[in-house]
Amino acid sequence: MSVIMPAGSLTSRERMIRTTALLVRERGIEATSFSDVIEASGAPRGSIYHHFPGGKSQLIAEATEWSGAAIATGLERALAGGDPVAAMHAFIDVWRGVLTETNFDAGCPVVAASVESAANPGAREAAAAAFIAWEEALAGALEESGAEPDRAGSLATLIVAAIEGAIVQCRALRSLDPLDRVERELATGIAAPTG
Amino acid sequence: MSVIMPAGSLTSRERMIRTTALLVRERGIEATSFSDVIEASGAPRGSIYHHFPGGKSQLIAEATEWSGAAIATGLERALAGGDPVAAMHAFIDVWRGVLTETNFDAGCPVVAASVESAANPGAREAAAAAFIAWEEALAGALEESGAEPDRAGSLATLIVAAIEGAIVQCRALRSLDPLDRVERELATGIAAPTG
Repeated sequence: MSVIMPAGSLTSRERMIRTTALLVRERGIEATSFSDVIEASGAPRGSIYHHFPGGKSQLIAEATEWSGAAIATGLERALAGGDPVAAMHAFIDVWRGVLTETNFDAGCPVVAASVESAANPGAREAAAAAFIAWEEALAGALEESGAEPDRAGSLATLIVAAIEGAIVQCRALRSLDPLDRVERELATGIAAPTG
Repeated sequence: MSVIMPAGSLTSRERMIRTTALLVRERGIEATSFSDVIEASGAPRGSIYHHFPGGKSQLIAEATEWSGAAIATGLERALAGGDPVAAMHAFIDVWRGVLTETNFDAGCPVVAASVESAANPGAREAAAAAFIAWEEALAGALEESGAEPDRAGSLATLIVAAIEGAIVQCRALRSLDPLDRVERELATGIAAPTG
């Protein structure tokens, strides 16, 4: 399970989107320029305008949508095992990898899009759709494990919010401690209504 | 209790810091320029360089530090009542106000600083100190209410992470639902080890 897929088999359009997501998760939207994306993806300058006639706002919105879908796929794959607690541990492990592999420079591109959303409505809408998709997947799995529908929904929101908040703290503290602590608390909370 | 204090009694230096915090919580660090701060605070152009010889990175770091301290003060005041669950509700109410008063454009400036921290080490350190201060205050109150020290620490991290993560989601969704759901879940979680 990988949060951001390898570039190998992607079209040049997809490669630009992936490169944008990788830059945004480290720098944020505002600090990620078309030039940065061109340089990092190796795309010819003209092609980016060809593929994204709506300019940077289109590229950022599509990168946010793509990140949201990639993370949803990883989460759904983990949940398919039928054990929401195990899936949560697997999901957190992926983020642990992202944080340590980038020396705590990278976080979640969907959070970055939300934090700078006032000036980026397309990215904001893609971020909202991503949060909803992740939480629906989690809530469904929690219900199947025996949680009441209402409880499953709010627990799913808690899980996503706490993991995202912990990733933000890990970046600030340059430490995995916040994620470790949140993981421990969430494991208890998930086990309670479903066990 | 207010997250960001009113400007009335502040010095012009403090007013610049406060203005920066208000801009960063909406736009992020990168999109907040010296010119924006000068315009929004009404400070004379020369004075900002006088007060912040380290330039924008100093101003952003001090604004993050100031935000962290203001939020810590509000949190400590709420916790002084001796009821961590009531304090959490009061704290979340403040954020509800920030979100609705700004039409979901504003979030937490400390999270904004963390998300763009790769290029802003001073702001990152101030954000880390803020998270630690908030969680120490919460953990202390939870311990006084009967939680085991180890549990109090991880529950405090869960509370801060989940509220911050929910604020991010509220901005993306333009809705208070994520914060409402997280509040319900946290109230159960806090009551359990201390009740």
